[in-house]
Amino acid sequence: MLMIPGPTPVPEKALLELAKHPIGHRSDDFSKIMAEVTQNLKWLHQTQNDVLVLTSSGTGAMEAGIINFLSRGDRVLAGTNGKFGERWVEVAKAYGLEVETITADYGQPLDPEQFREKLEADTEKQIKAVILTHSETSTGVLNDLETINRHVKAHGEALIIVDAVTSLGAYNIPVDEWGLDVVGSGSQKGYMIPPGLGFVSVSAKAWEAYKTANLPRYYLDLGKYKKTADKNSNPFTPPVNLFFALQATLRMMQAEGLENIFARHQRLMNATRAAVKAMGLPLFAADECASPAITAVAPTQVEAEKVRSVMKKQFDIALAGGQDSLKGKIFRIGHLGFVSDRDVLCAIGALEATLQMLNVEGVTSGAGVAAAAEAISQ
Amino acid sequence: MLMIPGPTPVPEKALLELAKHPIGHRSDDFSKIMAEVTQNLKWLHQTQNDVLVLTSSGTGAMEAGIINFLSRGDRVLAGTNGKFGERWVEVAKAYGLEVETITADYGQPLDPEQFREKLEADTEKQIKAVILTHSETSTGVLNDLETINRHVKAHGEALIIVDAVTSLGAYNIPVDEWGLDVVGSGSQKGYMIPPGLGFVSVSAKAWEAYKTANLPRYYLDLGKYKKTADKNSNPFTPPVNLFFALQATLRMMQAEGLENIFARHQRLMNATRAAVKAMGLPLFAADECASPAITAVAPTQVEAEKVRSVMKKQFDIALAGGQDSLKGKIFRIGHLGFVSDRDVLCAIGALEATLQMLNVEGVTSGAGVAAAAEAISQ
Repeated sequence: MLMIPGPTPVPEKALLELAKHPIGHRSDDFSKIMAEVTQNLKWLHQTQNDVLVLTSSGTGAMEAGIINFLSRGDRVLAGTNGKFGERWVEVAKAYGLEVETITADYGQPLDPEQFREKLEADTEKQIKAVILTHSETSTGVLNDLETINRHVKAHGEALIIVDAVTSLGAYNIPVDEWGLDVVGSGSQKGYMIPPGLGFVSVSAKAWEAYKTANLPRYYLDLGKYKKTADKNSNPFTPPVNLFFALQATLRMMQAEGLENIFARHQRLMNATRAAVKAMGLPLFAADECASPAITAVAPTQVEAEKVRSVMKKQFDIALAGGQDSLKGKIFRIGHLGFVSDRDVLCAIGALEATLQMLNVEGVTSGAGVAAAAEAISQ
Repeated sequence: MLMIPGPTPVPEKALLELAKHPIGHRSDDFSKIMAEVTQNLKWLHQTQNDVLVLTSSGTGAMEAGIINFLSRGDRVLAGTNGKFGERWVEVAKAYGLEVETITADYGQPLDPEQFREKLEADTEKQIKAVILTHSETSTGVLNDLETINRHVKAHGEALIIVDAVTSLGAYNIPVDEWGLDVVGSGSQKGYMIPPGLGFVSVSAKAWEAYKTANLPRYYLDLGKYKKTADKNSNPFTPPVNLFFALQATLRMMQAEGLENIFARHQRLMNATRAAVKAMGLPLFAADECASPAITAVAPTQVEAEKVRSVMKKQFDIALAGGQDSLKGKIFRIGHLGFVSDRDVLCAIGALEATLQMLNVEGVTSGAGVAAAAEAISQ
């Protein structure tokens, strides 16, 4: 049982699609799948922009989202408060961009005011893009994309490039309403299928920037993907089986409806956080900036890795550990994608039992499940 | 029934692996799969070099194989006699490499002598790499990699970067014995699984070049893949389901044995070519340079696209068409990967029936299947 922030659980319907024999990617049958999937991706992104599909992880999609719209020496403003925010800074630097960062401590949200100040100070419009991780998977913090984006729009020139890898399909991101230029995501998250596909939505303004952007690229050249996507095709052989599965899960998402999907993730988050609090374990991120996809717990009474180990061995539930500097300090409960109320109750029940097995003091038996159940019933 | 050069047919065993629920990519279980797969990839490549796995198409793997070992302005020599050879020239130029090409007409092999001359003339050792497509998928031509490589080795400085996308697992490519520095391939070919994985083998000499290579890269940075592969892990979330399938097909390949695999592809090629000749259809590539993976046919008595159309509609057999300038001029029969003698007999039988249905003159009924059967029985 996967309760990690990706790969996330995959519904049986999608698993069976994966087992279908591949078809030719230049066939009419595949074009029809591409056409449907593209329409439904636009629906999911709440946009009329292009939503392009790459054979890559989310990182490949985000790199494409950065390098297609900028030129060597361009100044960009990047928010970092976790491993993924830092990764986009590394990408930007690898391509010779001039990166200015706005940082917050791990577990803290980025301060929109700092973006406003930097952007307002840039009267010569030197800042070409703002790069931002919406839901920071490494810490469980949701940054205030809506407010930061408002400051970017007030700037007028800069593109906003958003890592929505663990927020798309979990939290409301109205791409057109907010005017988000580039939004990157990955298949093993809210999409409910295995890893292997990266997604990038691209606004008209970003395509304008593409015309003069000069960073080298070929496989990640989004112009090639747009040109072929317009004909329901791909520039390079796509992972056809993952497209079969994606077609199935996008239909499931449409049947559930965006509002219901977002409400479900909110409920799963509330239930998980209420339970963790009731068990007396410290949450790593505050309620005000909690990610709907993942809850990080920073236990003080017990080693995080011991909790993960018992959860895996005794209950076959995979939780995620901390990454890099957070290794051993936190464990992370994923509640993203194909996750139900029942799954969260089950995981919380197992977590309570785990704490008992590890003789953690101060845990009231049943308090976690009771708190989760109450949150769900509200 | 897929008789195209990729995606190629996938055995049931691998399809069922695809339908397994994903597991965490940072789990011990996945590390074990990585360890086994990596060992078996080395076996398949006949090498002790690193064989790294990317979430990408074959193009992504080849781009990684080019951009990790070269610097802006480096001079490279590239052979082009088809769409894929040309693609690597485009990649090299996109990154600012200085490309000199050795060309041959579509359907003709590259002349090794031209490589020898260029390389011998380069006494100042300015040529940093030779880029070559082994089996040119667009034309069904197999270039003489062994001889060209010998000239590269005589040069001493230049790396040899090989596109083995449709030759690896079909033709003997002893990477260590020949000293091939970089070899790129893709999962939907000889590997017998769906598209989604790219492979790059990297020699010690190539890693030396990596140290000073300065082309920008992040997602395609092979150093990151090596660092994590050494710990049986991945820098970015890998498509775990494709790894399950790959584990299964590599075991199948080991059970069959390299020599048997190569002999089977040789036999399928011989049978296909004998049949096409017996049916009176012109082969696009000569016997001396015929690819063991794909046979291109350039019919004069009937439109290539009509043949493909009837084969698809009447017999549900997918053949490939010509690409770009060859569109409508050739059709291509794939016999790569999970293809048996029976499959070829079946496709040839259907092709004969198709020609009859299209009233193509000069085709002796049964001659194709008879010739294929004879070639198989030899």
